[in-house]
Amino acid sequence: MPRHRLFAPERLLAFSDGVVAIAITLLVLGLEVPSVHDVPEKELPAFLLDSAHALLSYVVSFVVIGTYWLQHYIIFHYVERVDRWFVLLNGLFLLTISFIPFPTGLQSVYRYDALAVVIYGGANMLCSLSLLAIWNYATKDFRLIAKDTPAQAIFSLKRRIAVTLAICLAAILLSFVNVLLSKLLFLTIPGLFFLHRVEDEKN
Amino acid sequence: MPRHRLFAPERLLAFSDGVVAIAITLLVLGLEVPSVHDVPEKELPAFLLDSAHALLSYVVSFVVIGTYWLQHYIIFHYVERVDRWFVLLNGLFLLTISFIPFPTGLQSVYRYDALAVVIYGGANMLCSLSLLAIWNYATKDFRLIAKDTPAQAIFSLKRRIAVTLAICLAAILLSFVNVLLSKLLFLTIPGLFFLHRVEDEKN
Amino acid sequence: MPRHRLFAPERLLAFSDGVVAIAITLLVLGLEVPSVHDVPEKELPAFLLDSAHALLSYVVSFVVIGTYWLQHYIIFHYVERVDRWFVLLNGLFLLTISFIPFPTGLQSVYRYDALAVVIYGGANMLCSLSLLAIWNYATKDFRLIAKDTPAQAIFSLKRRIAVTLAICLAAILLSFVNVLLSKLLFLTIPGLFFLHRVEDEKN
Amino acid sequence: MPRHRLFAPERLLAFSDGVVAIAITLLVLGLEVPSVHDVPEKELPAFLLDSAHALLSYVVSFVVIGTYWLQHYIIFHYVERVDRWFVLLNGLFLLTISFIPFPTGLQSVYRYDALAVVIYGGANMLCSLSLLAIWNYATKDFRLIAKDTPAQAIFSLKRRIAVTLAICLAAILLSFVNVLLSKLLFLTIPGLFFLHRVEDEKN
Repeated sequence: MPRHRLFAPERLLAFSDGVVAIAITLLVLGLEVPSVHDVPEKELPAFLLDSAHALLSYVVSFVVIGTYWLQHYIIFHYVERVDRWFVLLNGLFLLTISFIPFPTGLQSVYRYDALAVVIYGGANMLCSLSLLAIWNYATKDFRLIAKDTPAQAIFSLKRRIAVTLAICLAAILLSFVNVLLSKLLFLTIPGLFFLHRVEDEKN
Repeated sequence: MPRHRLFAPERLLAFSDGVVAIAITLLVLGLEVPSVHDVPEKELPAFLLDSAHALLSYVVSFVVIGTYWLQHYIIFHYVERVDRWFVLLNGLFLLTISFIPFPTGLQSVYRYDALAVVIYGGANMLCSLSLLAIWNYATKDFRLIAKDTPAQAIFSLKRRIAVTLAICLAAILLSFVNVLLSKLLFLTIPGLFFLHRVEDEKN
Repeated sequence: MPRHRLFAPERLLAFSDGVVAIAITLLVLGLEVPSVHDVPEKELPAFLLDSAHALLSYVVSFVVIGTYWLQHYIIFHYVERVDRWFVLLNGLFLLTISFIPFPTGLQSVYRYDALAVVIYGGANMLCSLSLLAIWNYATKDFRLIAKDTPAQAIFSLKRRIAVTLAICLAAILLSFVNVLLSKLLFLTIPGLFFLHRVEDEKN
Repeated sequence: MPRHRLFAPERLLAFSDGVVAIAITLLVLGLEVPSVHDVPEKELPAFLLDSAHALLSYVVSFVVIGTYWLQHYIIFHYVERVDRWFVLLNGLFLLTISFIPFPTGLQSVYRYDALAVVIYGGANMLCSLSLLAIWNYATKDFRLIAKDTPAQAIFSLKRRIAVTLAICLAAILLSFVNVLLSKLLFLTIPGLFFLHRVEDEKN
């Protein structure tokens, strides 16, 4: 009788969820609380208006990381076993997710700067690329998923990750035209993800 | 035989608990440890007395977030299944909870400022509103809860969330009269929640 | 047939563990990484020697919080059900634990200052007092524990928490004589806890 | 009938995973987001190029901590019961892991400094030494593992932890010759760990 496997999806999932939950919650540290010395009380309203942009960056990163978490969630819904290459790819995903607070901060501070948006978009593309790599690795010849997984479910998630990737690329290109529109474009990532018909949910 | 559902309450709950636990623990970073350069040792007692207000802000936010956690806990006690709109509303709740450290910092620094309390109260109202939206969505026509859930349990939680909302509104209005009293009013949120007869507990 | 209870120890425990894990890991943020501007490379060795005290504060708080976690762990080992007063007392414990990074920072910066040690010791006493309150509440007339819990196990944990409390008090008093010795005294908290005969372990 | 044991591996593991997940995610706070005041927009590209080194430090620490997590994971795969000395050794491991962000910051700021690399390497050696101590303690006379655990699995993990230790030592020595090469050497820790034949996985 074989011993239970070394790598169980459950624990890898719990650890990954922990990292994502921390990364998403650390974003708030990017919202700077001023000191009375730097921003006297009478200048607080102006400071807060000025913070609207940082707040937008915060919300965008929060909902985008939330979408990656959902995509990761769906992957682990289908994955029945993991091996060390899956663990490695999952580690790359966690590396890219926990990095997001840094480019979020950059584009929040350099708000009119296309370069900051390019870096932000690039970091988000790495998140999507690692998710795509995980899903491709897991589903290739039903390597880590059940043999009876509907092809449609496999394709549906691939397409949705690819759409995220395309939005990031479009946002990067748009940043050279209009930085603010480019940032708002990221908000379509959770929007499209939710409006997209969740075929998997029906199985 | 249908495959087990895509969205299970357990994992969503574990992730949500993680985010709330991090947000509540990050609050301590708002308590500034001075440097010897800025605050020489002989001025430490005065600095600490001066920190009493920041400490109050810390305690208030801690117990208020703790109360939201309990309300969220009760919701998941009744919820038997989740769907994607529930996931979306839950994500809004997490967004509002993880945002709290920022307005906490603001009203801690700008301690005599009504605007800071208004923002703090507004952020707390968003927390309560998202909880109310989650509970309304889940209980409408027993959408995500058991058919035999007593109507009294559904109403009891709604009322308690609404009371929290009312306290926040009252605190905002009071802030224009007396800022300190307004802040102390938030302490009634956990107080009322606990003193309120926990009918659900008896089921 | 009664519905399963509203408050289950498992989830409260998971949430508590999350808060303690975050508080203990946030301690490292108290170790300041200097900038090259403030501390040129050639002054790094002197800076690091000077950091030895902050490092000691870090290690002390880490092992002390670790000990509280173990005491909390033991409490939940015996507790079979929780009620809302238990939830409230547990919340107080989490409030005191997540506060520890602040007094740790104070006594790390104001290293020769008795006041900083008094505050640190006081914060630790609050942790122990809340643990004692939890344990007294849970064990009084076997309120939340099994009826066959040996009286010896109940008393053993009470005594150990009381010993922690006594060490904190002694450290506070000693701080007026010798601040460094006073800080080292906190290291006896995990020491005594471990050397103490773990009678419970034998059950 | 004996009561279930005081110390269960599952909860210790969950707590440990929490600490490691937080430590690995806190690393991103070491990537400094500049203010517009310090780094004007036109200097952003130069600043980012200059950040490449800090980014390397971030990635190295992330993958190295990830490797420790995997080694810790494998230990808990075999451990069937824990006692208080195991808990103590595990606590030492968590202490060393949660300390890593500090030396990571040091070697990121003092990038050409051998001393910073020596400290970083030393901190990593403490992580490996504590893992080795845990594994030796657990496997000695099958103290905490199943009697039928293959000797090969025990030895394989020991060897891999020892290899990590040797790499850290080599990196420390190399830092006196070439600091950058020395840092890159740490990247072989996850590399070797993965390329190494995972015999355990076959059981």
